[in-house]
Amino acid sequence: MPYVTVKMLEGRTEEQKRALVKEVTEAVSRTVNAPPENVTVFIEEMSKNHYGVAGVRFSDK
Amino acid sequence: MPYVTVKMLEGRTEEQKRALVKEVTEAVSRTVNAPPENVTVFIEEMSKNHYGVAGVRFSDK
Amino acid sequence: MPYVTVKMLEGRTEEQKRALVKEVTEAVSRTVNAPPENVTVFIEEMSKNHYGVAGVRFSDK
Amino acid sequence: MPYVTVKMLEGRTEEQKRALVKEVTEAVSRTVNAPPENVTVFIEEMSKNHYGVAGVRFSDK
Amino acid sequence: MPYVTVKMLEGRTEEQKRALVKEVTEAVSRTVNAPPENVTVFIEEMSKNHYGVAGVRFSDK
Amino acid sequence: MPYVTVKMLEGRTEEQKRALVKEVTEAVSRTVNAPPENVTVFIEEMSKNHYGVAGVRFSDK
Repeated sequence: MPYVTVKMLEGRTEEQKRALVKEVTEAVSRTVNAPPENVTVFIEEMSKNHYGVAGVRFSDK
Repeated sequence: MPYVTVKMLEGRTEEQKRALVKEVTEAVSRTVNAPPENVTVFIEEMSKNHYGVAGVRFSDK
Repeated sequence: MPYVTVKMLEGRTEEQKRALVKEVTEAVSRTVNAPPENVTVFIEEMSKNHYGVAGVRFSDK
Repeated sequence: MPYVTVKMLEGRTEEQKRALVKEVTEAVSRTVNAPPENVTVFIEEMSKNHYGVAGVRFSDK
Repeated sequence: MPYVTVKMLEGRTEEQKRALVKEVTEAVSRTVNAPPENVTVFIEEMSKNHYGVAGVRFSDK
Repeated sequence: MPYVTVKMLEGRTEEQKRALVKEVTEAVSRTVNAPPENVTVFIEEMSKNHYGVAGVRFSDK
């Protein structure tokens, strides 16, 4: 605890994902006073045809 | 806001998914009085071996 | 199947939520060709202090 | 109802997933007094580069 | 890992929830070969006005 | 995009939650190169009787 899920469009590099997990863990740990080893991060990627705002998918723009 | 997630078995066409995002956005916008540009829709697909009812996966039927 | 989750700020009336469930079910059923009795809708409400965009919670605006 | 989601690292066999859905359904049905045909199970797999604890992804260990 | 979420209507007793967490953990541990101390269970309760099937909320039946 | 959900035990102060949303947004924005105004954060709190590890709820320890 805490458990963090980051949902974003696919396409980030491994280097970006590695930094994301590291820095989000630090931000959570620091602000809610939880030891870093208790922080779990999940990345969920979505494709452009499965994500829409205002009724239009990103793959259709 | 609002954020809508539709979880369903894989296999729908792009045309069906496009209509789904459009019409769900309209239904949400109309009923809860939110501007369409504030409505986000995510589609999550699952495969038949990752979905079960009554203890049996759809891939095992 | 499908399973739809609508996440939104608390404060909608029962009448709005009733219409939301009805019309989202119809939109999903129509567009992905699923019988309405197979469509499930979940509403998840969030409070303004648990929701932020651009780093600022809605309760802090 | 109930709806159960099991999120785990990819790599389990079909036989393990089949048993998982069956036995989790039985455990839920028995303990909360719901008929098995009302229990739905979803499996969500994650890859090692999308899952981290203590700021480090499993793919980086 | 694994992480299990059980979503159900509110109203179960503490005794039922305690048994649910225990027996679901055992079922998951046994079937996917994970040590019980690695299994996490979350319970999410929903109210009858936030849950509908076939376009009708359970609170409206 | 991205959408971040932080799930944790209830009991944090408003000050902690405010800082959490701010600093997680900065960490995500910086590492995946997304403008802060595109980052959304949701906080989900759970109670000790709805969260268990190794088959035992935190409320039962």
